[in-house]
Amino acid sequence: MSTQFDHVSVIKKSNIYFDGKCVSHNLIFPDGTKKTIGVIFPSTLTFSTEAPELMEIVGGKCRVRLQGEEKWNEYEGGQKFKVAGNARFDIETVETLDYVCHFG
Amino acid sequence: MSTQFDHVSVIKKSNIYFDGKCVSHNLIFPDGTKKTIGVIFPSTLTFSTEAPELMEIVGGKCRVRLQGEEKWNEYEGGQKFKVAGNARFDIETVETLDYVCHFG
Repeated sequence: MSTQFDHVSVIKKSNIYFDGKCVSHNLIFPDGTKKTIGVIFPSTLTFSTEAPELMEIVGGKCRVRLQGEEKWNEYEGGQKFKVAGNARFDIETVETLDYVCHFG
Repeated sequence: MSTQFDHVSVIKKSNIYFDGKCVSHNLIFPDGTKKTIGVIFPSTLTFSTEAPELMEIVGGKCRVRLQGEEKWNEYEGGQKFKVAGNARFDIETVETLDYVCHFG
């Protein structure tokens, strides 16, 4: 995976969730699509999706349980996982995560 | 001040300082110059500069004391302050800050 995105617009104001456990910035690409780039600090959180998401883990380590599943899967820097639209997933961040969320 | 930067490169991996009280991402502009975009959570921190910095406060509220000064000045969204190179400044973040740091 590349270490950077080029030719993008960056929204200056961040998105802060879960009392600061998750911080992200919105990126807009030349084709109009959006991604978010952010950090999740050690925690166990439940996220809800609207569009389907592809979560790219840039660094750190987490365990993820998708809605309706019992099994937790581990992911770390260089890996990715998919989440369906209108779904929830539990994520236990073991080591602070750098991530990129791709939508659609 | 604009609400976004266009035509930039964004480094995916974040910079985390002060045990997560400050999180930033590096932006590289078409002319090769760098800025950082980030968040500072409520705290009182001391930062050190290398190059001179212009701190653009996008949102939130802080009090700042520059090196060698006794007075604290207040800044909030829409304001900015300058810091000399090779200097220190104390920053008390009263409400979580969104900021952009311009160098040089």
